[in-house]
Amino acid sequence: MATSSRALSKLPMSAAAAGVARTQISRMLITPITRRTIATRPALRSRPSTTGARQLRRGYADQAGAAGTGATIPAPKKPRRFRVWRWSWRLINLSLLGGVAYVGYEIYQDRNPEPQVKPDPSKKTLVVLGTGWGSVSLLKRLDTENYNVVVISPRNYFLFTPLLPSCTTGTIEHRSIMEPIRTILRSKRGHVKYYEAEASSIDPERKVVRVFDNSEVRGGMIETEVPYDMLVIGVGAENATFGIPGVRENSCFLKEIGDAQLIRKKIMDCVETAAFKDQSPEEIDRLLHMVVVGGGPTGVEFAGELQDFFEEDIKKLIPDISDRFRVTLIEALPNVLPSFSKQLIEYTESTFKEEKIDIRTKTMVKKVTDKAVEAEAVGPDGKKEKVTFPYGLLVWATGNAVRPVVRDLMGRIPAQKDSRRGLAVNEYLVVQGTRDIWAIGDCAVAGYAPTAQVAGQEGNFLARLFNNMAKTEMLEEKIRDLSGSLNLKPGNAAEISKEIEDSERQLRRIKDIKPFHYSHQGSLAYIGSEKAVADVSWFNGNFASGGSLTFLFWRSAYLSMCFSTRNRLLVINDWLKSKLFGRDVSRE
Amino acid sequence: MATSSRALSKLPMSAAAAGVARTQISRMLITPITRRTIATRPALRSRPSTTGARQLRRGYADQAGAAGTGATIPAPKKPRRFRVWRWSWRLINLSLLGGVAYVGYEIYQDRNPEPQVKPDPSKKTLVVLGTGWGSVSLLKRLDTENYNVVVISPRNYFLFTPLLPSCTTGTIEHRSIMEPIRTILRSKRGHVKYYEAEASSIDPERKVVRVFDNSEVRGGMIETEVPYDMLVIGVGAENATFGIPGVRENSCFLKEIGDAQLIRKKIMDCVETAAFKDQSPEEIDRLLHMVVVGGGPTGVEFAGELQDFFEEDIKKLIPDISDRFRVTLIEALPNVLPSFSKQLIEYTESTFKEEKIDIRTKTMVKKVTDKAVEAEAVGPDGKKEKVTFPYGLLVWATGNAVRPVVRDLMGRIPAQKDSRRGLAVNEYLVVQGTRDIWAIGDCAVAGYAPTAQVAGQEGNFLARLFNNMAKTEMLEEKIRDLSGSLNLKPGNAAEISKEIEDSERQLRRIKDIKPFHYSHQGSLAYIGSEKAVADVSWFNGNFASGGSLTFLFWRSAYLSMCFSTRNRLLVINDWLKSKLFGRDVSRE
Repeated sequence: MATSSRALSKLPMSAAAAGVARTQISRMLITPITRRTIATRPALRSRPSTTGARQLRRGYADQAGAAGTGATIPAPKKPRRFRVWRWSWRLINLSLLGGVAYVGYEIYQDRNPEPQVKPDPSKKTLVVLGTGWGSVSLLKRLDTENYNVVVISPRNYFLFTPLLPSCTTGTIEHRSIMEPIRTILRSKRGHVKYYEAEASSIDPERKVVRVFDNSEVRGGMIETEVPYDMLVIGVGAENATFGIPGVRENSCFLKEIGDAQLIRKKIMDCVETAAFKDQSPEEIDRLLHMVVVGGGPTGVEFAGELQDFFEEDIKKLIPDISDRFRVTLIEALPNVLPSFSKQLIEYTESTFKEEKIDIRTKTMVKKVTDKAVEAEAVGPDGKKEKVTFPYGLLVWATGNAVRPVVRDLMGRIPAQKDSRRGLAVNEYLVVQGTRDIWAIGDCAVAGYAPTAQVAGQEGNFLARLFNNMAKTEMLEEKIRDLSGSLNLKPGNAAEISKEIEDSERQLRRIKDIKPFHYSHQGSLAYIGSEKAVADVSWFNGNFASGGSLTFLFWRSAYLSMCFSTRNRLLVINDWLKSKLFGRDVSRE
Repeated sequence: MATSSRALSKLPMSAAAAGVARTQISRMLITPITRRTIATRPALRSRPSTTGARQLRRGYADQAGAAGTGATIPAPKKPRRFRVWRWSWRLINLSLLGGVAYVGYEIYQDRNPEPQVKPDPSKKTLVVLGTGWGSVSLLKRLDTENYNVVVISPRNYFLFTPLLPSCTTGTIEHRSIMEPIRTILRSKRGHVKYYEAEASSIDPERKVVRVFDNSEVRGGMIETEVPYDMLVIGVGAENATFGIPGVRENSCFLKEIGDAQLIRKKIMDCVETAAFKDQSPEEIDRLLHMVVVGGGPTGVEFAGELQDFFEEDIKKLIPDISDRFRVTLIEALPNVLPSFSKQLIEYTESTFKEEKIDIRTKTMVKKVTDKAVEAEAVGPDGKKEKVTFPYGLLVWATGNAVRPVVRDLMGRIPAQKDSRRGLAVNEYLVVQGTRDIWAIGDCAVAGYAPTAQVAGQEGNFLARLFNNMAKTEMLEEKIRDLSGSLNLKPGNAAEISKEIEDSERQLRRIKDIKPFHYSHQGSLAYIGSEKAVADVSWFNGNFASGGSLTFLFWRSAYLSMCFSTRNRLLVINDWLKSKLFGRDVSRE
């Protein structure tokens, strides 16, 4: 390529055009701008008038003349417009170049982490339970040099849950929304220990967490205790079945990667079983009926993705059964997406109608068998009616329950005896009735909805709090030391007093940390057919929108929320892949 | 972009340079060449002399003159060299453009299949069991309009097995080497039925295959019979444990996608368990010891991939345990890769030594417990010695056993009573002792090794055979009809006789199909650290090579062998991904 450009430069071109040609080449090669073009740039910038431009061009022409015949070039007719184009081109290419360089640097950093600061026994031990939104947001912002940080979780990766519904149909591959906790921790300045283990109990008296290895491969050490000085509980919640019989045995949940993989496998299993030789029409209808319980964003997005998968991929490949696939969404409340504004709820309902997704609101599931959901629906006249939904696949996308380790801790603390849905925390997220224990995310009850957004902001808040606490201690120690030396060396007392004063001022500023306050950014949901709904907080008001443009906003918002550049690029890659090749219909 | 090029064309450039600039732009935009550049091309080609080029350029200059001042341009100093560059640039870009267009067309074809020819009850029913190398090669080449084709397999996708070892560490994602059988069948001209089911028995008397749905989701119809006129058995083989106790319970196999996923999960489980708090040093050593049994290409490639994964990724992220990871390869024969030439075996052994992979040849596994492999090694002095290998992960990559459905059929056919390793077939791959049953791949004993290459060639052979049989029948029927009409309408007897003669000649040519003959193309194996070994058949000899260049050859050979363009692009994509971001260390 370089040789080609050199060969080109030997051609005696008229200079203005030569400049253009060279710029084109440099754009094409995406290399830094050559010395010559740079030299012409200030000239262009400093003489914006037409005359100036003409002079410049004449100068160029003289150069060309020196090299060859001395051709004269007339003034261009529309130089201003051309210049605008040229500059916007340059700008686009420069920003592209900058973007590529930035991404390259980010990836390089991730792949080549610097040596870490070793653990220091004199520092406090901060134990973090969990690798979800809360814990990972905390870890991302925490200055890990200030503490000996230990992370404990049975899941050695962070999962970007908002895109989990897309994994059930293969629009996105699950590994694209996972970020290994090892990578996250390796990029911290101070060394962080990680144990892949589940916490079974917390002893606030002895300040230890009991953990065990619940994975398949086990060593000689299966269960042990981890002592802590400070503890953050971010273990999340588990699926709630509300005591409805048959739910746990027959339905799929949608919380973890394994759930999404199971659903993906089962969708194709239903389709292939429906296509089995001599399958009866009733059974085909049952097998191709996918029932989703829960009209929150997860349930709605899953229903939309499912219908997309069928319309865009399965239908083309297995046309025999194409008109029998049905999706039904069951919700106990009077409408789906209860956290969205009224017009968006209506928009979602009308879009689902177009997509032939059946919404059954005011319908309470009473019992689940291996082939049917039995429910009670409240009709428009207020009368209750029994309804049965035979299903091939049932996805349970509603409800959070307290995890055993949290329930155990709640039982040990008298102050938590009235708490039902999780650990009650104060405005600094300290678990009420304890010292040095904080709780964040779905296992904490701070008065907010159990969403990723809340958990993330809680994690960020704790990181700020802990960073401040470390700085405070450092400053306090410094003041103590200075006061001590004030008595020992009375010579430069004035100087030391001033330093103490400075430190105290700094301390006051740091110590003045405000309580946690959740700021709602908005709600987003994909509703199928490349449409989405968005309720975005806008100053003191609310901005509601739905449709295909909102779908682009949904995509870009989720992209920007991804944990790492790697995740972002992988998700984009998957979107392109599924657009280009379609979703994979292999049952695996 | 189009507007930008329009804006450019308004600039009065000197013509030659303008041409250059425009070509640059068209290259940059990767759009078809504009009408004007095409017009100049024949002129360039027909006048290769310097004078010609000068004339051409003057012509251009005149055009520029008409538009502006009439500048004269001198003859270039090195036009010939420049032209070579320009032309090679054009050639490269044209071929790139052609490549992109071709790939785009291929993908479009796959995504938008044409309507298929409906099944015709008057045609014979051809049942194909299996979706492996043999069956899929057959289906790819078969004219499915000639038969009512029914494919039966519990796995609804084709798996490109040679790249399976790369899936165990995440160098390649498993979905990239899977091609849905639905896509393959949908692209055929004649409609093909597919049932996701496992064949449990074959009744050659009644000509039916008994199949059952062995998946998780089941309908009302679980087991049924599929009648056939012609049957192809390509069900492959299952894993053999040679009756060694503990193998099935404690080791992972490496034959299917599920196996690769399990291994991937277990590698990280071993690493995380080794990093568990207070794990004893002996247990860390055991957990980080990965034992591979079987020195064939699969075992060798897996050992290489494993070492790569550790060296390139795990070591960086979890440095604490970095010096304790070990891979041991156990082989009963005196050397690994027995099908390769001697120098390549030595090269592999020395490369493994550099990579610190321990090779234990002449070592027979006698017993496997949940934490150790007990084996008997023959020393250099011929003495037998007991050896124990404590392991964290054990992969069993050796041995094929007959599947139950094949064993059942063998029991029903007296001619198969001496056969042990599968169905004995004749030179046309007909199962001996049967009519209308063919066997291909690992379940057939035709005197060749049980490899993908053999199975693929057998499938191709059968496709040719069946296509010919259909043509033969068609021609025979035609001759019959013509002979009949000869008696009815004696008027144009000469014409009909000639037609009969033609058909008979065609028939003779078609009927003369030669028996199946396997032609060995060569053997390839990846041996870690971006090195590979290759034994390629070369005319009548053999071409052996090993190293980093061979690794590139290995990659391109496997790429070209991939089933579809989609697979090829996805595999390239995965290679780039794992190069850029490293392999994923999440345990999932």
